[in-house]
Amino acid sequence: MADTGWPGCAKSLKGVILDLCGVLYDSGDGDGVAIPGSIEAVKRLKESDLQLRFCTNETQATREKFVAKLQRLGFDISVAEVFPPAPAAIAVLKERGLRPHLLVHEGLLPEFDAVDKTNPNCVIIGDAAENFSYQNLNEAFRVLIGLERPVLFSLGQGRYYKETDGLKLDVGVYMKALEYACDLKAEVIGKPSPTFFQSVLGDMGLKPNEVWKTSGIFMHNDLSGLQEMPSDERHPTVTADATVDNLAQAVDVILGQRGRGA
Amino acid sequence: MADTGWPGCAKSLKGVILDLCGVLYDSGDGDGVAIPGSIEAVKRLKESDLQLRFCTNETQATREKFVAKLQRLGFDISVAEVFPPAPAAIAVLKERGLRPHLLVHEGLLPEFDAVDKTNPNCVIIGDAAENFSYQNLNEAFRVLIGLERPVLFSLGQGRYYKETDGLKLDVGVYMKALEYACDLKAEVIGKPSPTFFQSVLGDMGLKPNEVWKTSGIFMHNDLSGLQEMPSDERHPTVTADATVDNLAQAVDVILGQRGRGA
Repeated sequence: MADTGWPGCAKSLKGVILDLCGVLYDSGDGDGVAIPGSIEAVKRLKESDLQLRFCTNETQATREKFVAKLQRLGFDISVAEVFPPAPAAIAVLKERGLRPHLLVHEGLLPEFDAVDKTNPNCVIIGDAAENFSYQNLNEAFRVLIGLERPVLFSLGQGRYYKETDGLKLDVGVYMKALEYACDLKAEVIGKPSPTFFQSVLGDMGLKPNEVWKTSGIFMHNDLSGLQEMPSDERHPTVTADATVDNLAQAVDVILGQRGRGA
Repeated sequence: MADTGWPGCAKSLKGVILDLCGVLYDSGDGDGVAIPGSIEAVKRLKESDLQLRFCTNETQATREKFVAKLQRLGFDISVAEVFPPAPAAIAVLKERGLRPHLLVHEGLLPEFDAVDKTNPNCVIIGDAAENFSYQNLNEAFRVLIGLERPVLFSLGQGRYYKETDGLKLDVGVYMKALEYACDLKAEVIGKPSPTFFQSVLGDMGLKPNEVWKTSGIFMHNDLSGLQEMPSDERHPTVTADATVDNLAQAVDVILGQRGRGA
């Protein structure tokens, strides 16, 4: 791929935000598999002067367990560099004095160990998978309907995702279910929520136009800059800066342009 | 209650459609309990020259089992007079050559015994309660997402209902979940769908303005005529003809007016 069409702003970049699943690795049996060239691409970004962060909507495991998996796949990534929804949600709880009722995957529960969950005044749902039983959803509903001002946080708003044994319903489906049951609008924490990206930018100390981020997965050959914060990754008005097949190609282009500019 | 405010059209009525739960009986432990005066009120309507039908969104039992319960409570009601969503759905399947994948309460399954369910080309959901497991909802989703033209029928669109042990999520919540997952709009079969009421009117051979029907439950003191087919029982433009506390009072007013007119 030639670098025609790639924005001229690569030279002014100060940071990169990468998606994980679909960009660094494909999920599947066990840990899944690293996408060819992505381990080396991450290494090259780390050796550059660019700041690097990773965004994920992973809510089936704690950040520690999730990063350990990435490390087993061969990636040089630390816990502090990875931004999943749960820690962002915990920050919101603290800020607003909220105590959650949790409907999440058991793998995520340790993330909330230090959070006060007595006498809950909000509900948090994540990708709970099998935990989305009728009884558990009904319990979350009863907590919400019993609150004077019900607050529902959803860790993502995905419709479904693919696993080796087929398609699986994602958290967004149950978010819509509870929204209808309680006649309310959930607050989404995670991609593609603008406030979620803002928290990553805040951690980097950078402005949106100083950062390049992957948008969704390369399957769609879709890479967007962060010129604007998209409210939906498939938003028709957000167009890709350039089209590449994988992270390795993207890093080639970015670092190549920066090299020529130096 | 005086009969002022009651429409003058009672004399021209030819039929009555009654809700069941909340009008004839309250649900609860076992069969629930008949609402005082309602057994006698049904008897008086049957002895009059008015046609009588019963509408319900009951989808946890076959029509036979459901009517047997009403008879145990003391009501003189036969299977042919009761209109639940399942038989209406079966009529639609036949008309459109559809074979359903069912996600319903096991109590309802016998209703579909004679229906071809091989190689399904649509999905029907009812108030499946505990059967709304993650696995079962995911299975219904996979059927829908695999169809070229996915069709989802929902037997009702209720948000929740009350049982003795508390509030329970109703079928509408899971309808919204699948609508979001598959990016489609479900077809509702049952109250308050106008086509559902139309099928009852068709069975009576009557026009909407010849029929009086209860709307929702008396808890809301809300009785509406069938001057127009409401698309939502809580529709703000549909106002009650009169307010009474229970079916017995309503029948007093109707039969009283007709008696004076005779």
